[in-house]
Amino acid sequence: MFVSRRLVLASASPARLRLLRDAGFNPTVVVSGVDESSVDLADPWEHVQAVAELKALTVAKGDLAGSDSVVVGCDSMLLLDGELLGKPADEADAVARWHRMRGRTGVLLTGHCVVDAATGQVVQQVADTVVRFGAPSDAEIDAYVATGEPLRVAGAFTLDGRSAPFVDGIEGDAGNVIGLSLPLLRRLLAELGVEVTSLWR
Amino acid sequence: MFVSRRLVLASASPARLRLLRDAGFNPTVVVSGVDESSVDLADPWEHVQAVAELKALTVAKGDLAGSDSVVVGCDSMLLLDGELLGKPADEADAVARWHRMRGRTGVLLTGHCVVDAATGQVVQQVADTVVRFGAPSDAEIDAYVATGEPLRVAGAFTLDGRSAPFVDGIEGDAGNVIGLSLPLLRRLLAELGVEVTSLWR
Repeated sequence: MFVSRRLVLASASPARLRLLRDAGFNPTVVVSGVDESSVDLADPWEHVQAVAELKALTVAKGDLAGSDSVVVGCDSMLLLDGELLGKPADEADAVARWHRMRGRTGVLLTGHCVVDAATGQVVQQVADTVVRFGAPSDAEIDAYVATGEPLRVAGAFTLDGRSAPFVDGIEGDAGNVIGLSLPLLRRLLAELGVEVTSLWR
Repeated sequence: MFVSRRLVLASASPARLRLLRDAGFNPTVVVSGVDESSVDLADPWEHVQAVAELKALTVAKGDLAGSDSVVVGCDSMLLLDGELLGKPADEADAVARWHRMRGRTGVLLTGHCVVDAATGQVVQQVADTVVRFGAPSDAEIDAYVATGEPLRVAGAFTLDGRSAPFVDGIEGDAGNVIGLSLPLLRRLLAELGVEVTSLWR
């Protein structure tokens, strides 16, 4: 029996929504409104996974419970020198981060949790992508931070925005760095018996 | 002396234009109209470089000659098993390519040539990015090819479109796979004395 499913993105991130739309999906956005600071785990992988799970389960257990929706929750952070970094606090913090990041290598972690709202089944996994930062000058860092972009994103950088010229390369999935790994989403959906192409608009 | 420069993209590729716009630039598009089939070099790196140079020089030596423009030309192809692949010929070719590509690793080559129209100075370099293809099923390949997307792109795949779930990862710059490496553009512009941030809109 073929059942048409609805893809629900449990995230307010415009970057994740754009990734999904560019890949042919038309997700409904339902923001969880959870307090992410309620999660504080020592292991970076466990931490982003727990936040992603909290977002997806909160949305799937709400008004959508029992519906045909598949709900995707994600959480992204940058691991640098063993420290897990989210959005910078302010402009000074963003500048300090870039002085620390340039010429170095970090790992962008994104926790993914997919919940079948019809059955309550939960599948999840963290994807990690190595990020090799370039070496922008002090003037380039100041110009970048002045755009305001780094204040809005985990790790204070984007791969699909103004800091793209300052990231020399990655090892892994590019979407994961932007906020959602589409090859991983495909595998998680398959575990729920949903073919990724069946969700194309 | 600070001179404001105009960025000109010598390419009809919507993916390249979008990469540049997303990164904060506002390039003018001037399509070269060159016959790419007039270039046929045995070495894959030399080939994409020669096509990129032909595009950029043709535009820079036209109406823009002597202007304040910096002209960027690019050419992308997929290297698989020693064979350099451009756009597929038709749907059957796209299906056959994916049957060959899935589960394998290729290298996406993009030649970059930047010409200072004011001085005629030329700087250029090829960027290569390893692409690890996933293993879509026959049904997924058929569904993907039916969208028409692979017929419009070098290598019959996209990293920023519907085949993103079928590419497991890359090693290198993601923009290079899409058609233009922004970290490489930054370095080539620096060789011409142009700071990349000075071109932000």
